[in-house]
Amino acid sequence: MKILVTNDDSIHAKGIRTLIKIAREFGEVTVVAPDSPRSGTGHGITIATPLRLKKLHEEDNYREYMSNGLPVDCVKLGQKLLFDGSQPDLVLSGINHGSNASTNVIYSGTMAAVIEACIEGMPAIGFSLLDHAPDADFSQAEDFIRDIIKTMIENPLPKGTCLNVNIPKIKKEEILGVRVCKQANAFWNEIYVERRDPFGIEYFWLDGEFVGEDADPESDMWALNNHYISVVPVHFDLTDYKQLNPIKHLLGK
Amino acid sequence: MKILVTNDDSIHAKGIRTLIKIAREFGEVTVVAPDSPRSGTGHGITIATPLRLKKLHEEDNYREYMSNGLPVDCVKLGQKLLFDGSQPDLVLSGINHGSNASTNVIYSGTMAAVIEACIEGMPAIGFSLLDHAPDADFSQAEDFIRDIIKTMIENPLPKGTCLNVNIPKIKKEEILGVRVCKQANAFWNEIYVERRDPFGIEYFWLDGEFVGEDADPESDMWALNNHYISVVPVHFDLTDYKQLNPIKHLLGK
Repeated sequence: MKILVTNDDSIHAKGIRTLIKIAREFGEVTVVAPDSPRSGTGHGITIATPLRLKKLHEEDNYREYMSNGLPVDCVKLGQKLLFDGSQPDLVLSGINHGSNASTNVIYSGTMAAVIEACIEGMPAIGFSLLDHAPDADFSQAEDFIRDIIKTMIENPLPKGTCLNVNIPKIKKEEILGVRVCKQANAFWNEIYVERRDPFGIEYFWLDGEFVGEDADPESDMWALNNHYISVVPVHFDLTDYKQLNPIKHLLGK
Repeated sequence: MKILVTNDDSIHAKGIRTLIKIAREFGEVTVVAPDSPRSGTGHGITIATPLRLKKLHEEDNYREYMSNGLPVDCVKLGQKLLFDGSQPDLVLSGINHGSNASTNVIYSGTMAAVIEACIEGMPAIGFSLLDHAPDADFSQAEDFIRDIIKTMIENPLPKGTCLNVNIPKIKKEEILGVRVCKQANAFWNEIYVERRDPFGIEYFWLDGEFVGEDADPESDMWALNNHYISVVPVHFDLTDYKQLNPIKHLLGK
């Protein structure tokens, strides 16, 4: 089994090391990850500037590359340049330092890599731990991640569906299990910090907190708040089907 | 009515001038647009570097700003800094130079601005013309855009739904009308052009063509290929609801 691993926190992040370790139990692993953090870069792709791909390490059944690109670029570069015209059998992204639950999935580079793989027809799973710390403890998540990967290899998802897995920041023995959920309807409450640079020109820097108040027990926020690992099946069809007929009524056909 | 206008092709693009002209017929207009092209930046936000916001022009019921940020940043900066704690009544994005139909919506900065406004609870519409040329002729689209904006002001969409409007590159009299559609299942066929820089180091540059072959007459690609303007209602819930139960069966709860 050929597995492509990427993330958005960069090749230097702690989280990707845990995911690489687990991935190597399942087959040949190729890592293509950004050379520096790309959090919050969403589904951006690099089209106006050249991309670089540098091999850092190679050994039996393992290759590691870094790129100056975004997470979606890493998936594309890996797929198109490193698999001899075939495709990886599985794409894994993460483990992200911080939540990609609820609407965070929209901004997430980690999940953009997963969605890109899904658009290209590859099975793909993104993993995130609800701990932003660079030295976060990912060991508690290992067994759950291994089980989810194993289950999804044995029971492949239909093309067009990928998974967004989030893991609460609690001890392993406190985790009550896995819940399959929908994306919670919760949001960031943000402000811009206003400062002046040494030249007296004002600048703005985004700050905020996530107000995760979706009380629906079917939502990923509820699962995480109640000591479950959340698994959301994600697709890339943004059509709001419920509104098709009302808008047809308004706009003609 | 207070309207925020943005795009991803930059404040210097021709397409945004047509949209500004139409928007000013409906109320007070504030423009916040990127200082250079940001095509393909998806739902990226700027979190690791400071943002700038520079006023370029002001007159009665009109203000124009440019920012070093991404399209989503432009919506956030405009909303949070320029509306005295209230919200714009409407956010318009575009007119994009090039298609945002089908899966292009995932990569589009133009539509990311619309989706961001939607997440923040504001009515929002994105407009795109299927012509990449910097000097594309947007005049053919004006009446249709005006009508769509008017209809959506008179009949507001529910919160959580926004619109992705694409206009074919044909003469006005050849346009057969507006069709409300779903996002087509069509894709880019891409390659990396490989070159070497003046120092002999290889680099890669994305190139490709869109293979828009979704034959479903309910899809936006079909509408555009058949001389209709496509209108897709878009939401930001990526949950693949059809897969919830099958995956619950696999992963436990």
